[in-house]
Amino acid sequence: MKLLSFRTPQGASHGVLRGETVTDLGRRTRYPTLRALLEAGEEGLAAARAETAADHTLPDLALLPPLPDAGKIIGIGLNYRSHVAEQAGREPPPFPRVFSRWNDSVVGHGEALLRPKASLQFDYEGELAIVIGRPGRHIAKADAYAHIAGYACFCDGSVRDWQQHTTTSGKNFFRSGACGPFFVTADEVGDPTTLTLRSRLNGEEVQHASTGDLIYDIPTLLHYVSTITPLAPGDIIASGTPEGVGSRRTPPRWLRAGDVFEVEITGLGTLRNHVIDEEG
Amino acid sequence: MKLLSFRTPQGASHGVLRGETVTDLGRRTRYPTLRALLEAGEEGLAAARAETAADHTLPDLALLPPLPDAGKIIGIGLNYRSHVAEQAGREPPPFPRVFSRWNDSVVGHGEALLRPKASLQFDYEGELAIVIGRPGRHIAKADAYAHIAGYACFCDGSVRDWQQHTTTSGKNFFRSGACGPFFVTADEVGDPTTLTLRSRLNGEEVQHASTGDLIYDIPTLLHYVSTITPLAPGDIIASGTPEGVGSRRTPPRWLRAGDVFEVEITGLGTLRNHVIDEEG
Repeated sequence: MKLLSFRTPQGASHGVLRGETVTDLGRRTRYPTLRALLEAGEEGLAAARAETAADHTLPDLALLPPLPDAGKIIGIGLNYRSHVAEQAGREPPPFPRVFSRWNDSVVGHGEALLRPKASLQFDYEGELAIVIGRPGRHIAKADAYAHIAGYACFCDGSVRDWQQHTTTSGKNFFRSGACGPFFVTADEVGDPTTLTLRSRLNGEEVQHASTGDLIYDIPTLLHYVSTITPLAPGDIIASGTPEGVGSRRTPPRWLRAGDVFEVEITGLGTLRNHVIDEEG
Repeated sequence: MKLLSFRTPQGASHGVLRGETVTDLGRRTRYPTLRALLEAGEEGLAAARAETAADHTLPDLALLPPLPDAGKIIGIGLNYRSHVAEQAGREPPPFPRVFSRWNDSVVGHGEALLRPKASLQFDYEGELAIVIGRPGRHIAKADAYAHIAGYACFCDGSVRDWQQHTTTSGKNFFRSGACGPFFVTADEVGDPTTLTLRSRLNGEEVQHASTGDLIYDIPTLLHYVSTITPLAPGDIIASGTPEGVGSRRTPPRWLRAGDVFEVEITGLGTLRNHVIDEEG
């Protein structure tokens, strides 16, 4: 299933997408949010499967990130060898480089990314996001996939000069990242290590990699992160970006108003966002 | 006022503390949480002031962090010269060193801090926490104090070996930090730059500083953080720790099961937590 969150005139809701048709699960199930649906486990997913009414059509909806109220959005830095290699002097990190993003740093498909007025060094990063389905702490690598509800496209928008202050600063600017348009349940994704990730800037491909090229693979990420903190349904792990970011081009290619950035991953659709300048 | 959150047999609630007496605001006002009360601004605070019934006595209550559902817990690293100086080779940072903590990394007064089984290098940090009261983005330094609801004691428990991986990793272990016992509204704190912060380990003073010794002062922190992200009622900024942490002693003094760590700040009470080993 493709699960997504969106705005309606009556407020935020969520649903399942089939073709271009959306069934409104906020209206038709007992679950007020997709996070609540995931918290209900198999029962929640079964409720989603059982509803098939055509309540909305996709082009009419203003999308939110699939999990707008994620408990934790966990980012992983420097997790593709090709991206490490494009940064002079960098070595593959000896441990996963974890950071966190606040929910309000992430928008939905079709929403504007804000180039902050505090910086001209606004950069894109296309990524595979993992959506947690089953809670867990100290998750063994062998059990990791059982904790995953699905996968989505993610744009880990980064403000590079502020990222020099600290990773948290550069990765958390208001509405600087994106996730969506939906997440796809794991049963429909197949092997998540064989997906092709492509990022495009104004239609031109700027990143192209296999999700199998992660330095720290998906089971290792779940194991590492859950050693620190419990993972819960609706938590997001953005698994890192491959080479091709704007800051490593000569000259650097910073995002500016009017740019359109897309992340496409096999089976996960295309996340598309345009850039506007923060007002003021 | 002293405002706090706690568990009752009927679930989590919050209240105002006068002497040893607690008025249960979750029961007596329309605000289900202290965060919701702060979101209501002056009206919320007026409702708290107006309620005076003696519903609980403090020693009977199991306390939670004052804002157990904080939208953002923002930590600041290396923000006292004395703490920078105790770290060989460190210079004062050119910008505030921001990181974030997840809510489940923080417990209330009297609750156990968990020494994670993944590490023996569990360290204490006593800090002044700022509680945001009024929402704001791009807050001017001159306006900063108008956005502050109050102040509290904070223990920024840190897992030093994992902090070498990334700051986020070392600062987010489950139940490794603490806040409380309450927060004190700004009107009763007076000048927050003249408070004395003392930390004690098993009764022995290990940190002693003035909150006026911050490298980046309170207005600068609000300005800097709000350049990145909107601040909202109930958000917490933990302003950094002075010298005296366990990792910089010779030999290092790591927290272990049975230790009692206290943070006392003028007018803000004493936050006391004991350490237990994570099970397993």
